[in-house]
Amino acid sequence: MEQTIGALLADTISRIARPDEEIMGAVQKRVDNLTKPPGSLGVLEEMVVRLSGIQRTEGPSLDRKAVIVMCGDHGVVEEGVSAFPSEVTGLMMGNFTRGGAAINVFARQMGAEVVVVDIGSKAETPPGVRNEKVKSGTKNMAQGSAMTPDEAVRAVEVGIAIAMELAAQGCKAIALGDMGIGNTTPSAALTAAITGRPVDELTGKGTGIDEDKRKAKAAIIEQALAVNGIDKHWRSELTPIDVLARIGGLEIAGLVGVTLGSAAHGMAVIIDGVIASAAALVAYEICPDVLPFMFASHLSEEPAHEAALTYLELTPALHLRMRLGEGSGAVLLFPMLEASIAMLNQMATFDELGL
Amino acid sequence: MEQTIGALLADTISRIARPDEEIMGAVQKRVDNLTKPPGSLGVLEEMVVRLSGIQRTEGPSLDRKAVIVMCGDHGVVEEGVSAFPSEVTGLMMGNFTRGGAAINVFARQMGAEVVVVDIGSKAETPPGVRNEKVKSGTKNMAQGSAMTPDEAVRAVEVGIAIAMELAAQGCKAIALGDMGIGNTTPSAALTAAITGRPVDELTGKGTGIDEDKRKAKAAIIEQALAVNGIDKHWRSELTPIDVLARIGGLEIAGLVGVTLGSAAHGMAVIIDGVIASAAALVAYEICPDVLPFMFASHLSEEPAHEAALTYLELTPALHLRMRLGEGSGAVLLFPMLEASIAMLNQMATFDELGL
Repeated sequence: MEQTIGALLADTISRIARPDEEIMGAVQKRVDNLTKPPGSLGVLEEMVVRLSGIQRTEGPSLDRKAVIVMCGDHGVVEEGVSAFPSEVTGLMMGNFTRGGAAINVFARQMGAEVVVVDIGSKAETPPGVRNEKVKSGTKNMAQGSAMTPDEAVRAVEVGIAIAMELAAQGCKAIALGDMGIGNTTPSAALTAAITGRPVDELTGKGTGIDEDKRKAKAAIIEQALAVNGIDKHWRSELTPIDVLARIGGLEIAGLVGVTLGSAAHGMAVIIDGVIASAAALVAYEICPDVLPFMFASHLSEEPAHEAALTYLELTPALHLRMRLGEGSGAVLLFPMLEASIAMLNQMATFDELGL
Repeated sequence: MEQTIGALLADTISRIARPDEEIMGAVQKRVDNLTKPPGSLGVLEEMVVRLSGIQRTEGPSLDRKAVIVMCGDHGVVEEGVSAFPSEVTGLMMGNFTRGGAAINVFARQMGAEVVVVDIGSKAETPPGVRNEKVKSGTKNMAQGSAMTPDEAVRAVEVGIAIAMELAAQGCKAIALGDMGIGNTTPSAALTAAITGRPVDELTGKGTGIDEDKRKAKAAIIEQALAVNGIDKHWRSELTPIDVLARIGGLEIAGLVGVTLGSAAHGMAVIIDGVIASAAALVAYEICPDVLPFMFASHLSEEPAHEAALTYLELTPALHLRMRLGEGSGAVLLFPMLEASIAMLNQMATFDELGL
């Protein structure tokens, strides 16, 4: 039975409950008795405590984990904001199916499943990519709304549905991945709208444009905000879904859904770079209780990324100067999360040591 | 045939040659043609290029890797610089042999061998720990020299010999690990001597002393520097080995040797926290060509760590607020180094993509 548009979203939001404090307290106590000075494993200690709360068990696991790579195209590319043409989105979807992209390589190493979703590319969906196309690319946000609110909600619900499937299969954590030529532009726009930080500060060089083109890109983002009636006071008139529809992207909306769906079904969400963090901001605007389910992975070279993480008060663990997307930075956090679980399960206690 | 003291050290220094620039250039070219915007994998790209130069092959590997945990005790503990008594060094050596310490857990996860060496504890060397004891703990450096120069050289040569053995067994990278109650004190002293930064800035809380004790610890370090005649101009009268002997530690000297020996035999050296970085500083003072063999792993909470890495112009990849030692942060870098190798070996090229 097909739900009406928005019903799944509303139901998902209603299911998001904060991580279990009692379990977190019990795990913290165990962590404090392990053979190390209290607190000396820093972020790893926090990770396992929070994973336990999220999974609602004192024995958290990452045996099954996945990266969802949402793919979409962007009408705003016609403004010349990207170093690559939109066709590359389709070519890269093919690359994902053949296992030759960075995300394939890293996910293989980390033991994470790769789920590639065409949620809105202009290309024909290649075999091996899940076809959930809401539409063939967004409209040019510098000239009007990128999507309708219904399209945005449908894209969010695609993400929710996939997260639910993975949760049902026993998945314990989801890394947010993206592919979409031009998508640092809507990501910076969304980050500007939500954090209130100046557009020029948030506009980076994406896949590799020069400083003149970067300035032009910032001007296009300003124009998109203006054309779409989004200023500092948007919260008094618009919903987060409205903003997502106007200046977002289909793959970003998909990742908003993945974030909400993961939180609603007890899975940790690993934020990748600037596209994933824009999605995280929108998800947080929709439902603040999603925040404790999020883990920052790496710190991207794209300036809007740090702004988004700062707004969310999340601290990235990996400083690798990456700016690729695909979830390539997010999956690199898995070994750290796994180390935190191994610490809890395998380290001796001070009692055992005779201290 | 026993070598005279210092012969192995001298021979090792003479073997250290810079990583192969030609191989690095060839690997950089391959990296630039992989299916990602040029440079977009940031530090991972630099890692694989440097690993290739170090291993002198376009097909670098980390199939065999190890962490060497050098254990030693410190006379200066009698000044009350540590939250734990010296006995804990021996208890922790036992913990290492039973596989219950953080380094055991993390090394197991990362597929790294753990080599535990008693190079100077006050305890009886437990079965399963390699006994290479140069002496049973250093003397109190606040009252005089911690070691004689001969003892320091012997400890350095223990480290060299173990690195050589591991290289002969096919080991490709070594993580520096340490255990020694009180060892943040000599580490901060060495870092102050070599970087010239103020002692108070470099003195941290170690395993967990309070602010009053931290101030007292800084005063003890100042006293040790003064008693041992080490001021800003030490380089005009003393060698790095002299400084290591006067205000260092046996496990630190061992790690100096591991660093030099690894560089001399084509292995990458992964720096852990403040003890390992103090050893790295001394190794660099002895032979600057050791620097390109070093990789910073995490950024420790101990303030001398950042000072040391800054002096060496090394940037830590992991920001985990750790301060445990044992090599626990260093081995966490292995998955990143392995991701960099997988990138090189497994990613498709733009030619294959049809771009």
